[in-house]
Amino acid sequence: MDFTEKILTACRNQKSLVCVGLDTELSKIPEFFKKSDDPIFEFNKAIIDATTPFVAAYKPNLAFYEALGTKGLIALEKTVHYIPEGIIKIADAKRGDIGNTSRLYAKAFFEYFKFDAITISPYLGADSIAPFIEDESKGVFILCLTSNPGSKDFQYFSNGEQTLYKEVAQKINTWNVKKNCGLVIGATHPGELKELREMVPDLPVLIPGIGAQGGDLELSVTYGTDKNGELALFNSSRGIIYKSIGEDFAQAAAKEAEILQSAINHIRKIRY
Amino acid sequence: MDFTEKILTACRNQKSLVCVGLDTELSKIPEFFKKSDDPIFEFNKAIIDATTPFVAAYKPNLAFYEALGTKGLIALEKTVHYIPEGIIKIADAKRGDIGNTSRLYAKAFFEYFKFDAITISPYLGADSIAPFIEDESKGVFILCLTSNPGSKDFQYFSNGEQTLYKEVAQKINTWNVKKNCGLVIGATHPGELKELREMVPDLPVLIPGIGAQGGDLELSVTYGTDKNGELALFNSSRGIIYKSIGEDFAQAAAKEAEILQSAINHIRKIRY
Repeated sequence: MDFTEKILTACRNQKSLVCVGLDTELSKIPEFFKKSDDPIFEFNKAIIDATTPFVAAYKPNLAFYEALGTKGLIALEKTVHYIPEGIIKIADAKRGDIGNTSRLYAKAFFEYFKFDAITISPYLGADSIAPFIEDESKGVFILCLTSNPGSKDFQYFSNGEQTLYKEVAQKINTWNVKKNCGLVIGATHPGELKELREMVPDLPVLIPGIGAQGGDLELSVTYGTDKNGELALFNSSRGIIYKSIGEDFAQAAAKEAEILQSAINHIRKIRY
Repeated sequence: MDFTEKILTACRNQKSLVCVGLDTELSKIPEFFKKSDDPIFEFNKAIIDATTPFVAAYKPNLAFYEALGTKGLIALEKTVHYIPEGIIKIADAKRGDIGNTSRLYAKAFFEYFKFDAITISPYLGADSIAPFIEDESKGVFILCLTSNPGSKDFQYFSNGEQTLYKEVAQKINTWNVKKNCGLVIGATHPGELKELREMVPDLPVLIPGIGAQGGDLELSVTYGTDKNGELALFNSSRGIIYKSIGEDFAQAAAKEAEILQSAINHIRKIRY
């Protein structure tokens, strides 16, 4: 099964386009975890147990784990292995290196950690992406137009006819021969999301920026999904996992995930 | 001391502009290391012991360590801590994320691993770079024009007046208020290196691509160094560390590093 099909299947089975970002920080999780040997994993486990019914994907951001050194990597490994079968596991790593090095990152993320997909920066071009898309069942989400203020610095650089982010979308579309390439497009740019979706109607899109970063959910869902209201994953991290820092943190996260799932399905006009 | 000054000092003290890339792979190191508990670190330790007299910097590429999971990270940590004081420690990580996430990467690389500098992808713009350049003594090398074939895909994208890689160089130059920003420019593009050096006369430049990738050393040194023949680091990885796979691997690496040091100093017309 190619990666695009894998996303469609996960979203249909789960009746959800929600991706939960596991951006777990020691300083933000409930106090009572701190007695545990591995507080990061224990927190993630509780979040996964509570939110799985409402989500299609989980996306740990590698920075949060690398910041803790080897301990963080152990927590990450346990977390990824804990995510149930059928749910998409995305490494938010924003990697990208020359060919022989990207090959090693592909090995690390796909073989060692067993992620389904990884986020990649496009700057180094085709040979930096190739090792990640050799196996049709493993996918990439390539940074196209990001949700942060710095997206304006280089991504809008234009040749007069089109901007760099559109050039990226267009090239990735031609490299998508195994149907395992997707794009990252921030919800903070709804107009651009609309144009990009028209340019690449068949690419999966990972859409961050709807929670703490202030992106518009209604426009993002309307413009970001494909003609069937599918092929998009909407990520919320802090807005879900830190909804409560009390005893009820897991139920609070589950409730937020369910609210987001319903809100997206409502906008998609899909009733389950 | 700002990072630019730190590079100048290391290069002057060591009488060298050589950077050795510690891209260590289990499958490529001598057989007899494989009995060790930590073959990657033991190999690196021997390479560092033998090559230190001839180098100004070491640059482990993170992919090679992450490919081994937590074991690799432990080997990396021990390696970085083993590099002697006064030698520049560069994390070749090619990271870059939105501001709050880059902050965590900065913490991971500068505080946990104690690197002096990190390589960064420019695609996400100013807020993705800011957390790495808050401390003047810690630096970044931002990907400008890379040594790989894929550099042609997006880096030459042009607005008619200038290419993306020049736009990157120009913006980084204006962001360099604490004198801790540098660029990565591949030795495989000597003409472009010349133009870039004229645009940014005061930025340190990290130049990969002179060994296995076939870049021209003479042109790279002539064009890549500043007006005093300084402010550039020339990286060789495979060409040094895997020069021999026999018992004499460390001496062979030392000899290669010394040859490269001398060749560069000869082109710089600096006699020690």
